[in-house]
Amino acid sequence: MGELDIRPAVAGDVPAIVAMLADDPLGAQRESPDDLTPYLHALKRVSSDPNQHLVVAVRDGRVVGTLQLTIIPGLSRMGATRSIIEAVRIHADERGSGLGTQLIEWAVDESRRHDCQLVQLTSDATRTDAHRFYERLGFQASHVGFKRQL
Amino acid sequence: MGELDIRPAVAGDVPAIVAMLADDPLGAQRESPDDLTPYLHALKRVSSDPNQHLVVAVRDGRVVGTLQLTIIPGLSRMGATRSIIEAVRIHADERGSGLGTQLIEWAVDESRRHDCQLVQLTSDATRTDAHRFYERLGFQASHVGFKRQL
Repeated sequence: MGELDIRPAVAGDVPAIVAMLADDPLGAQRESPDDLTPYLHALKRVSSDPNQHLVVAVRDGRVVGTLQLTIIPGLSRMGATRSIIEAVRIHADERGSGLGTQLIEWAVDESRRHDCQLVQLTSDATRTDAHRFYERLGFQASHVGFKRQL
Repeated sequence: MGELDIRPAVAGDVPAIVAMLADDPLGAQRESPDDLTPYLHALKRVSSDPNQHLVVAVRDGRVVGTLQLTIIPGLSRMGATRSIIEAVRIHADERGSGLGTQLIEWAVDESRRHDCQLVQLTSDATRTDAHRFYERLGFQASHVGFKRQL
């Protein structure tokens, strides 16, 4: 396999990102890969916010992974800045290749670079394989994640 | 009881916010109310980020509650913007008064105003009373929340 490059996502990556978001038991129900317009608008919002880091992992010219890292300053924990990882996806062809680990470790390194004291994420309760993966990477399943649709 | 005012936090609110962060079984172990310097620096970082909304609830001139709302644009869920609620604290004198509900509903309304499609939060697994509270307010405990200290 060729070298991996992790870099900020640009508009030309959106079809590949959306295809990965949709190629997933949960994502298949909530994405619309046939109409990229809302995703391109969303990319503009993400790219104009300096605390958002939406990246793609590229190997041999192909987008094979993505995640979004958000930096959040706050007062709790003695004024700690934390980061949140969202929307982690690995292309089906690359699962088991160690790419997930590389992407998460990239996010951890980037969080340290932004002086974060804590990295956090939530994972759907049904994704038990993902839970084991995060625990192997040193994450603790200490919290319950709540969501309310608007 | 007097009228409740929910407004952005300013430096003069920091002692009261930190006292509430520390007056908590988990917070007592990780806050330093005797040295406000790191919190005042953190408030500057929060206040300079237009996607952070750190607010206090004030009644009769006294800070009686706080939370932080963060607006996060993203590509997943058809380019949905989501919000995250963190650091919810209610003064001991006001627990059971309905103030927690008012603060969360403020955060939900503010999230709608920012065109969010989803509001999310995590709650420590030991806070079972809080979990019932969020479920009563229409939140679903659909996720596991992972954290990794840096």
